[in-house]
Amino acid sequence: MLPHIRELSRRTPSKILFIVLDGVGGLPLEPGGPTELASAKTPNLDALAKKANLGRLTMVFPGVAPGSGPGHLSLFGYDPLIYEVGRGALSALGLGVELGPDDVAVRGNFATLNPDGTVADRRAGRPSTEENRRVLAKLKEQIKEIDGVKVELYTESEHRFVLVLRGAGLGADVHDTDPQKTGVPPLPARPHDESDEASARTADILNKFSEMARKALADEPKINGVLLRGVSKRPVWPTLGEITKLTPAAVASYPMYRGVASLVGMTALDVEIGDDPDAPQGKLKAIRDNWDAYDYFYLHFKKTDSTGEDGNFSEKVHKIEMFDELLPSLLELGPDVVAITGDHSTPSVMKAHSWHPVPFLLYGPNLRNDPAQRFTEDEAAKGVLGDLHGTHVLPLLLAHAGKLQKFGA
Amino acid sequence: MLPHIRELSRRTPSKILFIVLDGVGGLPLEPGGPTELASAKTPNLDALAKKANLGRLTMVFPGVAPGSGPGHLSLFGYDPLIYEVGRGALSALGLGVELGPDDVAVRGNFATLNPDGTVADRRAGRPSTEENRRVLAKLKEQIKEIDGVKVELYTESEHRFVLVLRGAGLGADVHDTDPQKTGVPPLPARPHDESDEASARTADILNKFSEMARKALADEPKINGVLLRGVSKRPVWPTLGEITKLTPAAVASYPMYRGVASLVGMTALDVEIGDDPDAPQGKLKAIRDNWDAYDYFYLHFKKTDSTGEDGNFSEKVHKIEMFDELLPSLLELGPDVVAITGDHSTPSVMKAHSWHPVPFLLYGPNLRNDPAQRFTEDEAAKGVLGDLHGTHVLPLLLAHAGKLQKFGA
Repeated sequence: MLPHIRELSRRTPSKILFIVLDGVGGLPLEPGGPTELASAKTPNLDALAKKANLGRLTMVFPGVAPGSGPGHLSLFGYDPLIYEVGRGALSALGLGVELGPDDVAVRGNFATLNPDGTVADRRAGRPSTEENRRVLAKLKEQIKEIDGVKVELYTESEHRFVLVLRGAGLGADVHDTDPQKTGVPPLPARPHDESDEASARTADILNKFSEMARKALADEPKINGVLLRGVSKRPVWPTLGEITKLTPAAVASYPMYRGVASLVGMTALDVEIGDDPDAPQGKLKAIRDNWDAYDYFYLHFKKTDSTGEDGNFSEKVHKIEMFDELLPSLLELGPDVVAITGDHSTPSVMKAHSWHPVPFLLYGPNLRNDPAQRFTEDEAAKGVLGDLHGTHVLPLLLAHAGKLQKFGA
Repeated sequence: MLPHIRELSRRTPSKILFIVLDGVGGLPLEPGGPTELASAKTPNLDALAKKANLGRLTMVFPGVAPGSGPGHLSLFGYDPLIYEVGRGALSALGLGVELGPDDVAVRGNFATLNPDGTVADRRAGRPSTEENRRVLAKLKEQIKEIDGVKVELYTESEHRFVLVLRGAGLGADVHDTDPQKTGVPPLPARPHDESDEASARTADILNKFSEMARKALADEPKINGVLLRGVSKRPVWPTLGEITKLTPAAVASYPMYRGVASLVGMTALDVEIGDDPDAPQGKLKAIRDNWDAYDYFYLHFKKTDSTGEDGNFSEKVHKIEMFDELLPSLLELGPDVVAITGDHSTPSVMKAHSWHPVPFLLYGPNLRNDPAQRFTEDEAAKGVLGDLHGTHVLPLLLAHAGKLQKFGA
């Protein structure tokens, strides 16, 4: 699809505001009851929904609960089954760690090894994140460079950390050292292809790292080994600007979302966070201050997802209502096309991402009539846009903004 | 999909009437108002819609407004992202110029060149079609053959003309000479692959043509050069007959539609045009006269599109009503399966092809119940067939006509 969009897109002065309420789709607390969206008092969203076109999005395929990375890539037009990000690179992005084109990122798990070197616990009893920091500090102190390659270590959470190698001539086609079971030793790191010298060099450095880590942690009772997975580089893809001729900006405060947006070539605007990491006012200010310089704004709100993950139905309702209060100020900016959706559903009753289709609202010129009255799961199911794939959002936004030319004569 | 249809299809005596009202989908004049289809008084269509199954079609992917070529190919079962027609060949088809398998067609643009040979205006100030004819007559007189290859020239419109080379051993993998910008000279024609001798020969002839044209137009103030694009042959595809075992006929009066139908192997029936180029009575007669000889009739009406392109809402409504008056005579022929749709939407308010899904009506044996009451955008959105891709029309027609066998045991 993207090569065709590249062919058909054209630059125009119109502006697109694309709002993602993370994990906004939900489920009722009891069968037949209202969802979080249906429970929320949202006069501004309701008014917009009455004028807008609604539909529902599936980001990967039915039944698949997407992570934040694939969910957002789909919304940006990049099919997540084609545009894959390695686990190491995705974790680095999530922590806000910048990756250059030569750098290699690896997901590390702290593990418990038996005296004979076999794996006793692949997650070292799931230590606290604090405990992770304490132990990782030892490694950071003792391992700063291997064979001239700079080694950086970052705590992710619990048993998870990220290892970044910075140096020239490193490949990333390297097998995991995690054997995926206990009672056997960790696997040696080795390249997929023995003739790939760059990846062989990375494998060699990773084997040295594993050995050095074991020595450094020899006196630890539980966290005495590391398993390495998802050796990867930052992927290099055609940018949204190249494909669509848009000048896109990302307005997000959490590193993961700034990172995914930067992968497709968006400029991540500075956002003043203040006391609230979701920072609605800081985001509004960032958009206002940069309104003239960009023609596509991806605006992200996180708390609709985190409250869902916490299983806190009423707090998720509250976060939706908070967004509703902000909506008029966003509309006052005068975008030509506005869309609102989520990157996946996060029903409070499931305390997790889910596969359920996400409501999608589209407002702008050239709309059809639409019977949907509110931005809810039930009403979106009646919407005139029907059921779409997440990747269809991009061409629809471009089309309604007058930025997509006719295909063929 | 087509290889599977080829495997599963079988010949039966049943007859399919497939009606395309070009660009029939529309938009309301004001939000909430009726579309062209909803405004039209269509008692016969309404009666058929009540008994039929309805749905909506997207020909390429959401957001993409198809040209007539891709829109029709999708309806005929040929995915337009796979079955591409070069611009030169498509223009030739649109003018009703027959292309043999060896012939090469090229889209030409008249341009204004500066004295130093650089391009001043890629469209020579958009001359009138009449002016195009006057200037093209000079070229026709002076350039009839190059290196033993016959040269034919046809006015398309404004700055556009079509150049056809007829001769053996000509390739079509040749780059455009249009530099896509002003201030630089036209590019030389050259083959994509230097070792492709047939295309190198075509490139050589095109360079000679450009040079001869420049000399012939040396005394013209504005139209003094040519830019060549879309060098192509008539594509060779498996025919609808080979794939479906149908004996298909096209009943269309405009060259473009006769041409696209002939690309998929339909026989374009003679249509008496009389005073009206859309010729409803001539088309009815052509179908009646040939009813026994074919089992699939593609019947095309153009004016629903051209009135939309003109932005003439009420005239588009009128053209829909004219079709409605003809419908009983078509149904009297006794087709086993009837389908009615458009190749894309052409909302009068947009004066252009659009990406909005097109209503699709299917009548025949083995229908489900359907709540849709009229052949309109709103009612089709409620239809039991749901949202389909244009390429799904062909297998549905075959299935309801009893011509598609079970897939697998």
